[in-house]
Amino acid sequence: MITVNVELGERAYPIHIGPDLIGRTDLFAPHIAGSTVTIVTNTTVDPLYGDALRHALAPLGKQVSTVVLPDGEAHKNWETLNLIFDALLNARADRKTTLIALGGGVIGDMTGFAAACYMRGVPFIQVPTTLLSQVDSSVGGKTGINHPLGKNMIGAFYQPQAVIADISALRTLPARELAAGVAEVIKTGAIADAGFFDWIETSIDALNRCEPQALAEAVKRSCGIKASVVAADEREGGLRAILNFGHTFGHAIEAGLGYGEWLHGEAVGCGMVMAADLSVRLGHLDDVARRRLVDLIVAANLPVRGPALGDSRYIELMKVDKKAEAGAIKFILLKRFGDTLITEAPDDAVRATLAATAAPI
Amino acid sequence: MITVNVELGERAYPIHIGPDLIGRTDLFAPHIAGSTVTIVTNTTVDPLYGDALRHALAPLGKQVSTVVLPDGEAHKNWETLNLIFDALLNARADRKTTLIALGGGVIGDMTGFAAACYMRGVPFIQVPTTLLSQVDSSVGGKTGINHPLGKNMIGAFYQPQAVIADISALRTLPARELAAGVAEVIKTGAIADAGFFDWIETSIDALNRCEPQALAEAVKRSCGIKASVVAADEREGGLRAILNFGHTFGHAIEAGLGYGEWLHGEAVGCGMVMAADLSVRLGHLDDVARRRLVDLIVAANLPVRGPALGDSRYIELMKVDKKAEAGAIKFILLKRFGDTLITEAPDDAVRATLAATAAPI
Repeated sequence: MITVNVELGERAYPIHIGPDLIGRTDLFAPHIAGSTVTIVTNTTVDPLYGDALRHALAPLGKQVSTVVLPDGEAHKNWETLNLIFDALLNARADRKTTLIALGGGVIGDMTGFAAACYMRGVPFIQVPTTLLSQVDSSVGGKTGINHPLGKNMIGAFYQPQAVIADISALRTLPARELAAGVAEVIKTGAIADAGFFDWIETSIDALNRCEPQALAEAVKRSCGIKASVVAADEREGGLRAILNFGHTFGHAIEAGLGYGEWLHGEAVGCGMVMAADLSVRLGHLDDVARRRLVDLIVAANLPVRGPALGDSRYIELMKVDKKAEAGAIKFILLKRFGDTLITEAPDDAVRATLAATAAPI
Repeated sequence: MITVNVELGERAYPIHIGPDLIGRTDLFAPHIAGSTVTIVTNTTVDPLYGDALRHALAPLGKQVSTVVLPDGEAHKNWETLNLIFDALLNARADRKTTLIALGGGVIGDMTGFAAACYMRGVPFIQVPTTLLSQVDSSVGGKTGINHPLGKNMIGAFYQPQAVIADISALRTLPARELAAGVAEVIKTGAIADAGFFDWIETSIDALNRCEPQALAEAVKRSCGIKASVVAADEREGGLRAILNFGHTFGHAIEAGLGYGEWLHGEAVGCGMVMAADLSVRLGHLDDVARRRLVDLIVAANLPVRGPALGDSRYIELMKVDKKAEAGAIKFILLKRFGDTLITEAPDDAVRATLAATAAPI
């Protein structure tokens, strides 16, 4: 087991990474202060890992309840969130109740937001069971739900007590979801660490085959990079925005198709292709690097061509992105692997990028 | 104009108190950084003060929109909150958009919670137009909405940029709402400052007549006391709980009758009578002090007899109070004016208090 610490002062927390961690009572014990625990999971994950987690908690003598939510991004909304609140209130959960998020990014984001809001804040632990949530949503404290007019528009910055990233849980992950997680790993290398990007290129087959050592290394390095970025900028005032590389275009794809049609990681994979195209078009990135990035995204079995939404719809959707200011879209662009810039872009360049990278309507 | 500063480090903010403040551009100007402002108000307050506020903002050259919500505690729920999110997204509000809460406690709590959650946090300014919201919800950063199973169960601690408490706005306040505000003024004196309690006793007629100087003094002293309590305990870890004197019983009254039947301040007034009875019954308070408190609550035109919910229902409702831990009710009791204690209480004493202070079923 490896532990990465996210250094956030009094909100600091550990990320434990390794095989067979869900069953380890000793990892949960230090982080549960009250007498009640509510596990939040979904209809897919509960049958796979719910019992192992409940078994791990049993020796602690807590009153444990489980809320099983419907699975999928389409359910990341107020109605589903309210099922958590209903369960907490019916179980008479108090201010010391610990929530445990057992599942992927949707479960983590909703459970974290429920923890942030229930009685104005109760503790929570994340047990991410997808590669995407292990490398992405487990670090940074972003929690929230979608609104029909925008993704993650309603939420809070709220840190967990601990993250327990069990690599063994990835064995049951569908190939499409594994690839979606690799997209965020690629993103992390691309924006922050050229050496890590090289490592991903040489390790992509091992990652695709779900080899535990390669996965553990990818999770450790991704979390380490993200943790240092977040520690420097907890509330996304500046530096942290680089983590949104590929996300401006990606969010437009997700919102334009309807949440859940493409996986978040798939949209980010394609969004990186678009952002790299725009980077080259505006003279920031050389085309050899762009080509390497596109090849790696292809090798990770991710889409590299955007859906046919039409230029104007793409631009419309990007203008309601949270990073936009007064209607101006902020693009995170690449200068080279490990180096980014954040800038607005001329409308015609954006349209040219969309013409080159998205299907025509 | 008097200014009380709430000392919360980087989240510190001023409360400006005085007549005719809503129209003062200079008070708003320092606290609005972005290019857009959304005023959140209700159908009662907008016709009274909406134009004055919009007139004050006009010289700042911001894009100003207004969301007018239905009036009343019964609307303090997710559906109404979502009207704010809809309006913000439709207006393309960004992360620098400032929300202004123009109204009473319900508007302040919902606008603050919307500001806490919209894009994970945007700035907001409170313009409380009721005595209750000027002395109570304007200090402390408690924001939130009700859940069918409990009051203020969903929310956040989130501080405004500034509070602008215009005493002149109280002229249009119905007598019943004025009395509800006086209840919180009485509470503040009772728990924290015997001299202030004496002042309220001698000034109660002036407060009932809505005399500006008496109101300004009451708001200033109440905010000052509450600000010092909150500064010492922002997230309600300990000391701050004393501010809930009268609220444990009061919340049970509100929830038991259905939110909006009694005003919050009316429930708190009656709740203080109940808490004082329990204080005497458990030997903490002498009966002369209890009598003085009851007389003052009567003089403020507040109810002193609880509704006929039945003992068991009262106790049931108090067990889901946010201050309860593992189902044990924490009562804030009075030892003397200016001094409190927090304790559990034997069931039979609670039932005896309810028999003495609530109507029989």
